[in-house]
Amino acid sequence: VSSPVITFTTDYGLRDGFVGVCHGVIARGCPEARVIDLGHEIPAHDIHAGALLLRASIEYFAADAVHLAVVDPGVGTGRRAIALATGSGARFVGPDNGLLAPAADACGGIAEAADIGDSPFALRPISATFHGRDVFAPVAAALACGRPLSDVGEPIDPASVAALELTRAVRDGDVLVAHVQYIDQFGNVQLDAEASQVERFGDVPQLQVSSDAWDRPPLEVRGGVTFGEVQAGELLLYEDSHRRPAIAVNRGSAAERLGVGVGDELRIAPAGQR
Amino acid sequence: VSSPVITFTTDYGLRDGFVGVCHGVIARGCPEARVIDLGHEIPAHDIHAGALLLRASIEYFAADAVHLAVVDPGVGTGRRAIALATGSGARFVGPDNGLLAPAADACGGIAEAADIGDSPFALRPISATFHGRDVFAPVAAALACGRPLSDVGEPIDPASVAALELTRAVRDGDVLVAHVQYIDQFGNVQLDAEASQVERFGDVPQLQVSSDAWDRPPLEVRGGVTFGEVQAGELLLYEDSHRRPAIAVNRGSAAERLGVGVGDELRIAPAGQR
Amino acid sequence: VSSPVITFTTDYGLRDGFVGVCHGVIARGCPEARVIDLGHEIPAHDIHAGALLLRASIEYFAADAVHLAVVDPGVGTGRRAIALATGSGARFVGPDNGLLAPAADACGGIAEAADIGDSPFALRPISATFHGRDVFAPVAAALACGRPLSDVGEPIDPASVAALELTRAVRDGDVLVAHVQYIDQFGNVQLDAEASQVERFGDVPQLQVSSDAWDRPPLEVRGGVTFGEVQAGELLLYEDSHRRPAIAVNRGSAAERLGVGVGDELRIAPAGQR
Repeated sequence: VSSPVITFTTDYGLRDGFVGVCHGVIARGCPEARVIDLGHEIPAHDIHAGALLLRASIEYFAADAVHLAVVDPGVGTGRRAIALATGSGARFVGPDNGLLAPAADACGGIAEAADIGDSPFALRPISATFHGRDVFAPVAAALACGRPLSDVGEPIDPASVAALELTRAVRDGDVLVAHVQYIDQFGNVQLDAEASQVERFGDVPQLQVSSDAWDRPPLEVRGGVTFGEVQAGELLLYEDSHRRPAIAVNRGSAAERLGVGVGDELRIAPAGQR
Repeated sequence: VSSPVITFTTDYGLRDGFVGVCHGVIARGCPEARVIDLGHEIPAHDIHAGALLLRASIEYFAADAVHLAVVDPGVGTGRRAIALATGSGARFVGPDNGLLAPAADACGGIAEAADIGDSPFALRPISATFHGRDVFAPVAAALACGRPLSDVGEPIDPASVAALELTRAVRDGDVLVAHVQYIDQFGNVQLDAEASQVERFGDVPQLQVSSDAWDRPPLEVRGGVTFGEVQAGELLLYEDSHRRPAIAVNRGSAAERLGVGVGDELRIAPAGQR
Repeated sequence: VSSPVITFTTDYGLRDGFVGVCHGVIARGCPEARVIDLGHEIPAHDIHAGALLLRASIEYFAADAVHLAVVDPGVGTGRRAIALATGSGARFVGPDNGLLAPAADACGGIAEAADIGDSPFALRPISATFHGRDVFAPVAAALACGRPLSDVGEPIDPASVAALELTRAVRDGDVLVAHVQYIDQFGNVQLDAEASQVERFGDVPQLQVSSDAWDRPPLEVRGGVTFGEVQAGELLLYEDSHRRPAIAVNRGSAAERLGVGVGDELRIAPAGQR
């Protein structure tokens, strides 16, 4: 039999020991759990970035894994602390601020939800500023060790769980009107589009990308499957490892080249169009 | 039965493989041990920061954990390498430069101490510059796997173990005279005070913070329990997650706002006083 | 019995969840494996730095460990994905671009090699840009769980595996003509020399280091065994923890002081010579 798995995602950084202390709390609460760090360098308070990283990662873990995620600008205020059970069997633990919602949707939706703010598993006294240690980690440990959701908190209506507004690309004739969804550390620009929305570009010899926010002409971008297909410094429209359309610069930063940030609109079209 | 736990704290950084190699040495010396990284981004050679991180973290681990910590500017010189057993059952392994002392004090004090510089568990030849790998990691593994302190080195007088001088806040009438003890990555400023020393501020509508080193008037600071209680950009005196008085700026850096570093004196008082 | 060990080395960084996802793939493929991160902050695309870190680290792990390493600027192009079994029993998994070669040489050379680009263990569809997740991690898991090399890919000629050109220092009379092999995060400058090549410097009271690329006189450097032997700011020629000659500045950066980068030639000689 294999150990229960807990994934762990935060904006805590690695400098001050916050992550290690949560590992310690889990090791005491569920010694047989294996904790896998998905990342602790989410930009501080960036719920959107944390939610996307979580949603993109969960399919590579056991279906019954517990996903512990904390990006929590509202810690100590009225926001709820929650645990979720989903249709696929995955469990989620974190603040009720939208962080968990896209991943839970991808796991078949929320089947059951609990308010864990006063969980019997919380470490007491519960601090005002470190619920990762005092509330979320011990509840994640309890779930990993087999406790049902009903043991770790008070049931709440799944429909009351905070959603996260995500943009969605649309096709407007030959033009894909998309938005920047995520920029990774290499500057690759992930769009909020589906692979099917760029399929028709497959036969187009030359594409262009433009933005109403720019005061410059469209930039040329080539369709392809991997970075090496374009010269160093050239723009590439490709399907990234999350199977989403994305724009890269071979050995460079597409985000810098395009001058864009998360949420910005981009229009992609066969060259010659706007 | 749960695995023995070794916590691991250094200033090695994560770039050059030093941490991973120590994990490898431990995995060979005590395969059943679980190693939990508390942090490897202690500022280089900052014994004070390492000692405080260690002291603040240990209570969240099993009472009989082994705490391996290496911030070691004197590696290869005359400083001793030591292992400690404490009243609470926790063991510590690291250089004898004060790094381990505050945490050992918090674990009931040093019950037994050993010089491990020539430990039979050390990897030989012992390098001059990487005792983490050659001395400290293998000794921590041996302790985690059940070896008594007397097996890993030569007994030394617990009273001979290097202490670490820590400042302590004092109350001077209505004024708390404190020092900056730790600044975390968000710029939150932890004071060297006890929660009881700021209790009387609970009823004071407005506080101020000042420093003899400043050539500006006192700054206003509000007492509260969490960041969200003050406006973005305002100063807050709160009890941090280590239950110590600290000063934060909501969504900002208190260290920058106050212009202070570790060790600087701050005076906190009801508004209108100095 | 102890768990099989997989070491893991990449240039993925820790920000975007790539490393955590690979851990998840391994946990599913071989739940009993213990994954030890050697480092994920190899400079992007720096095969040379990755190869040296790997070679320097492997001796501290079990002889039959699986070493998974991914620094892969050619991902998605024609370069092969490979798995290697070596004379010592160590296995290696990664791209066929020279990254694995120096470490495999240090493990008794390549005994067996396989092309794993179309491995039955690969996750399908195989993405064009993330072979760490889709090819290398699942193959490493299969090997750790006992699969022979013949199960994970198609046999290839060991002699066809890409080598990595590494410079080598030479003695020219009293002068050591060496090159910068690696610069660690502290700025310590490792040379491409063997300890035996600097032995004769042991009795020399004063050394100097120079470079044809400099337009300044030689710098004085003292031989010693550890940083504390020279004053803060002075240059030291010492044997580093990998038992290689290296140059450090006590409490400073030798790379900055010398103004050198990887590959640069340095000449070390008794003072007064060139």
